[in-house]
Amino acid sequence: MALSDLVLPDLYCPLESAIHRHVRAVDAQAVRWIRDSGMCASREEEAWVVATHSTDFFARFAPVADDDRLLATSLWVYWGFAFDDARCDNGPLSSRPDRFNALAGAVQRAAEAPSAADGGERFVAPLQDIVGRFRSFGTPTQVRRFTAAHRAWLSGVCWQIGNEAAGRMPDLDEYLAMRLLSSGGEPTFALLELATGLEVPQAELNRPAVRALTEMAILVAALDNDRHSLRKELSRGHADQNLYTVLMRHRDLTLQEAVDAATRIRDRVLTRFLQLHDRVRPGAGVELSSYLQGLRFGIRGNAEWGLRVPRYLSLGHVPDPMDEAPLAWAPAPADGSGRPLSEAPSVAWWWDDHLL
Amino acid sequence: MALSDLVLPDLYCPLESAIHRHVRAVDAQAVRWIRDSGMCASREEEAWVVATHSTDFFARFAPVADDDRLLATSLWVYWGFAFDDARCDNGPLSSRPDRFNALAGAVQRAAEAPSAADGGERFVAPLQDIVGRFRSFGTPTQVRRFTAAHRAWLSGVCWQIGNEAAGRMPDLDEYLAMRLLSSGGEPTFALLELATGLEVPQAELNRPAVRALTEMAILVAALDNDRHSLRKELSRGHADQNLYTVLMRHRDLTLQEAVDAATRIRDRVLTRFLQLHDRVRPGAGVELSSYLQGLRFGIRGNAEWGLRVPRYLSLGHVPDPMDEAPLAWAPAPADGSGRPLSEAPSVAWWWDDHLL
Repeated sequence: MALSDLVLPDLYCPLESAIHRHVRAVDAQAVRWIRDSGMCASREEEAWVVATHSTDFFARFAPVADDDRLLATSLWVYWGFAFDDARCDNGPLSSRPDRFNALAGAVQRAAEAPSAADGGERFVAPLQDIVGRFRSFGTPTQVRRFTAAHRAWLSGVCWQIGNEAAGRMPDLDEYLAMRLLSSGGEPTFALLELATGLEVPQAELNRPAVRALTEMAILVAALDNDRHSLRKELSRGHADQNLYTVLMRHRDLTLQEAVDAATRIRDRVLTRFLQLHDRVRPGAGVELSSYLQGLRFGIRGNAEWGLRVPRYLSLGHVPDPMDEAPLAWAPAPADGSGRPLSEAPSVAWWWDDHLL
Repeated sequence: MALSDLVLPDLYCPLESAIHRHVRAVDAQAVRWIRDSGMCASREEEAWVVATHSTDFFARFAPVADDDRLLATSLWVYWGFAFDDARCDNGPLSSRPDRFNALAGAVQRAAEAPSAADGGERFVAPLQDIVGRFRSFGTPTQVRRFTAAHRAWLSGVCWQIGNEAAGRMPDLDEYLAMRLLSSGGEPTFALLELATGLEVPQAELNRPAVRALTEMAILVAALDNDRHSLRKELSRGHADQNLYTVLMRHRDLTLQEAVDAATRIRDRVLTRFLQLHDRVRPGAGVELSSYLQGLRFGIRGNAEWGLRVPRYLSLGHVPDPMDEAPLAWAPAPADGSGRPLSEAPSVAWWWDDHLL
């Protein structure tokens, strides 16, 4: 099948859209920081990092935040994409788990220990700058939630790189468990509290239902990003682990069939998110309510950003400007049946009211 | 140098000793559970798991706990040693980070998601049984603290296995950062709250000083275990990553010199632990006070257990009984100067009052 014949259905996303009103001014500061940070090895790398438009991304997650908080949280998103591109998805370490595991350990320790040395790794000092900002305005609990989420992300990248090295295509269940982590959604959503300043009480944040909502928001955004990057991956001839390659391999589907199956899986998760959200939200305190709204903004904002960002759309050597075409949305889910995803036991508990 | 000429100095450990008074009865239940769990592949493996005397170990960490809580927490210690021996330190995965990363991901997900499938891995169902017990009597926050600590442990094992595969001996700084995780001290100390039922308020537990105390307790116990297992490692001709091989390689020391240098490093950490503990303890609430006492019991209990347990002492094919010889202790630290461990930037912040 020619790529041009591939039909990617519109996304179903009945969620509020918003963006921080100072996004442009804050992004100008972020771009200056990137240039001064020393984390990019070349002008080309820097251009691609800037073209992730990470402030545009996170300004949709946290439309209400002090500017310095929006800046610091957006800097982490920039940093995360830069690290991902240079050290995780591409580059010499992307199939060397022996080396990447040690790098992940050192980077994680640098986020936790202000005294840690950079060991010659260019991504360490910029990360320490960012986490130092978090410590300056966040509570110790917010910072620790973020660093724990950061470790979860890196553990997922280790998993992905291990599979890559072993030449192993995970099945759907393993892929969803891995993608929950490797997508970076854990630290991204942990930034919500740092951006708003509202610390969710521990007993509310750790409720299984709230964990399930967090994980579902992460997975919807992660699967949307698989969709956004599909054309680029295909144009490069990669057979990387993504929802489509997983379904094609293990269910013996064509690419178009995999796209349709993937849409139904993603819509089942979003449908459950909406249903469970509406049950939890009315009883939430002000901090949890803000957090849940952040999950909604995040799913929507990630989709709006991902449908336009040159990171996913530009196929050339130099990133194009951000796309500004109007977006089209699906009027209904491809599968709104509410059926549990029992074919993926790792996440099936999200549908088990007895456990929530 | 003949092994018999090696002088291992007595441990300095001026901390309270205690043990749960029902340790024998609870251990009998634990041993029955191990036999029924299906997690051991052979009678020999089972004998070595039982010979870790994990109830004796954790009964020293939590001398005051309901019996069912002591049982469940001790079961995790048994499980952790069994998993470590079969999947981490030995066996086909111990130098296969590509495969181990995926196993760690699946095992971690099984701890978090009650619906996760075992995928044919014999260690999964017993772990889910144990975490199910934690959920039955622990708060969601206690369980989540435990699973986050569990991920930290597995990330350290991934790091260790990656270094093993790369043939890479870490330097002291990297080794300490890795050992903080790979030792399993994070989940072990996270069991304290599950054992006592006392949940430390988030703002207290995440204070940098309390994090530093937790990390120091983990490191002292981990380095003591390096010491306890040294003769066994040497008798097997292993050149595994441990404090001695690290110091010998990177400081060009003899084994005896490395032992002496290691003792000074360990005593510097314990000295700082004692000093900082005495500053934090007076202002602690009842839950934090219990937790800090648990750190003290844990350091001491780990040493008492490690000096006698056949896991470290028995050199034959079949484990000997627990040693019952009286223990000798050093009257003073080999280095009680209070100097920061500035040669290890990853942990040097523990001495920085400005950061605590």
